[in-house]
Amino acid sequence: MVIEAKITAPTIITLDHGAVRELRLNHPPANALSPQLIAALREAVVGAPRDGVRALVLSGAPGMFSAGFDVPLLLTLNRAAIAEVWHDFYALLRTLASSSVPIAAAVTGHAPAGGTVLLLFCDWRGMAEGDWKIGLNEVQVGLPLPPVIFAALKRQVGSRQAERLAAGGLLISVAEAASIGLVDVALPGERVVKRAVEWCQNLLALPPQAMATRREARADLVCLFEQSLDREIDEVIASWWSDETQTALKSLAERLAKKKAK
Amino acid sequence: MVIEAKITAPTIITLDHGAVRELRLNHPPANALSPQLIAALREAVVGAPRDGVRALVLSGAPGMFSAGFDVPLLLTLNRAAIAEVWHDFYALLRTLASSSVPIAAAVTGHAPAGGTVLLLFCDWRGMAEGDWKIGLNEVQVGLPLPPVIFAALKRQVGSRQAERLAAGGLLISVAEAASIGLVDVALPGERVVKRAVEWCQNLLALPPQAMATRREARADLVCLFEQSLDREIDEVIASWWSDETQTALKSLAERLAKKKAK
Amino acid sequence: MVIEAKITAPTIITLDHGAVRELRLNHPPANALSPQLIAALREAVVGAPRDGVRALVLSGAPGMFSAGFDVPLLLTLNRAAIAEVWHDFYALLRTLASSSVPIAAAVTGHAPAGGTVLLLFCDWRGMAEGDWKIGLNEVQVGLPLPPVIFAALKRQVGSRQAERLAAGGLLISVAEAASIGLVDVALPGERVVKRAVEWCQNLLALPPQAMATRREARADLVCLFEQSLDREIDEVIASWWSDETQTALKSLAERLAKKKAK
Repeated sequence: MVIEAKITAPTIITLDHGAVRELRLNHPPANALSPQLIAALREAVVGAPRDGVRALVLSGAPGMFSAGFDVPLLLTLNRAAIAEVWHDFYALLRTLASSSVPIAAAVTGHAPAGGTVLLLFCDWRGMAEGDWKIGLNEVQVGLPLPPVIFAALKRQVGSRQAERLAAGGLLISVAEAASIGLVDVALPGERVVKRAVEWCQNLLALPPQAMATRREARADLVCLFEQSLDREIDEVIASWWSDETQTALKSLAERLAKKKAK
Repeated sequence: MVIEAKITAPTIITLDHGAVRELRLNHPPANALSPQLIAALREAVVGAPRDGVRALVLSGAPGMFSAGFDVPLLLTLNRAAIAEVWHDFYALLRTLASSSVPIAAAVTGHAPAGGTVLLLFCDWRGMAEGDWKIGLNEVQVGLPLPPVIFAALKRQVGSRQAERLAAGGLLISVAEAASIGLVDVALPGERVVKRAVEWCQNLLALPPQAMATRREARADLVCLFEQSLDREIDEVIASWWSDETQTALKSLAERLAKKKAK
Repeated sequence: MVIEAKITAPTIITLDHGAVRELRLNHPPANALSPQLIAALREAVVGAPRDGVRALVLSGAPGMFSAGFDVPLLLTLNRAAIAEVWHDFYALLRTLASSSVPIAAAVTGHAPAGGTVLLLFCDWRGMAEGDWKIGLNEVQVGLPLPPVIFAALKRQVGSRQAERLAAGGLLISVAEAASIGLVDVALPGERVVKRAVEWCQNLLALPPQAMATRREARADLVCLFEQSLDREIDEVIASWWSDETQTALKSLAERLAKKKAK
């Protein structure tokens, strides 16, 4: 039951289900992570507890959770702007990891690259059944997987699967994602948001001290951000501007443009 | 074949199957962990090698391995006594983890909370098929999961499942427990003790140096107890006496009393 | 398509599939790891990049990947020679773990003990379906599992399975190996080499920077060799010469001799 619906930003629709707030990515056609969406999502997560929100659901469009970074847009940015994007993205991941309220991802469809990254830092992940792809295919565009993201992947699926997925840049099916634990459950698309809300409600029905155990269980994830990541971010940015990665990114953008033109 | 059966304490029945000793929890109706049972179990584990026992099987009643802490009884204890209970319980876990002889858990039925905790520190866990529940539902009664127990859970089922089970205080089915590795195998109830004994016998049939590999494989579990746990235990005890936990525990005790009255 | 086939050493057949080189163990009847085979394999892996090889496939004979250490032969060696064997074997494992080119294991058949050890340090493992055995049964012959090998096993299958497999010295079926992740996939025997080659080709088709992510994902494996392992190797050698292990090894050699005589 949706009590209140409002548009807080052009790119995110906020829907309150009681104390559980759904943040629905709304950046058609692919919910690509633009600098604006990254900033808006971080702001929405940070601000939720101030509004009395006790849990969050992060959802997308039917068939499209998020296609990851908005590469065509990012290719138009200069060095200062790209540096800001990466710093903001890391800040977003830190915000998700250390959120004082639990966050359930309702993976409503495709979630490649940045789409998968987001859900690694949430508390729970339900994914819509269907012909959707999920995985960290960063290396397919010549971008080495940032260490903090690899560490979160390893925490999620174990060392062997993390090596397999990351080094191969694999996109996998929903069934395989559920089987190896990249998502917690696969279920019919029309139920995925509802189930994420229920997951939150079940957690909120526990005695308040249960949150101490949640913090304990997520301490290793939060810990990833407790060291200085400046050097890591600098290296990620340097990779971005390498000839090889720029060539691969431009080639990707061209393929996307042709696809759009059809 | 049981060679010798005797009652070593009111709460534990000792059954020797050759060099394998079965310690059968015998504290009806629920094998609840009373201070007396905790002490008796520790004593029985510590004492077994002195009697020439080469492996242990920890079992319960058909349908009831152990319901965990005896909350109604513990609610009658004062601060000094509760402190002693927790120190003794940690000492029991350390004893299980560092036992010089292997310990197979024959999980004969329900094993919520403390029942699950015990088996995390054993070498092997076979569980009876049936409509039994298993899991660390501590947070359901407002008791944060002690860090050393969370660490053992993580070792057993991996980071993602440990977060899911612990933060949600989930009780799960036997089939799910076997599927995620919370127990090693599910099998018909009448065979679970026999299989645990056989598991021990197979291990004992190996050349004696095999025990060095057992020690190596369990070093990370033993290591959990090699730091001082005084501060952790103090925090667990402080949680116990918090208003929130006391309220939740009393509410649980009332539910149990009503159930018993029926 | 095999472009070039030559015999580089009596014990290894080299087959180049484009930039992917297959190293086929060829030491009948069991591809047992003799000092010569250990040295030849290490040399072949080290030398491959110098020949322009971009990935390796490690294969065996149909039905027999490798039976592990050549125990009857090793029993004829003196202390100096045994010490050299163990140092060379550790050097081989280090070479596999830190190889600059990816290595896919085509596990064509039985792979007990040392056969399993080899594939733990590769990048990927496909195993032939069939009645083959795989596992670290070292403790069955009284040889404690060397710590670096246990650590690699833990990385591969997680703490619980590593404890179960190593402490019990278990040999398991192909299906179970695939189910617990000891190998990545089971497939018909006639396709296992082909699939390993394809796995390599897929990796090589990625942008070159993908190799940075491969290195990141394998850093924990390489790290095992970055400390001094001299003391560990000394202990392994001391175990080898213990009365208990010598007795167990001789008994194994006698069983193998009788089997051969039939």
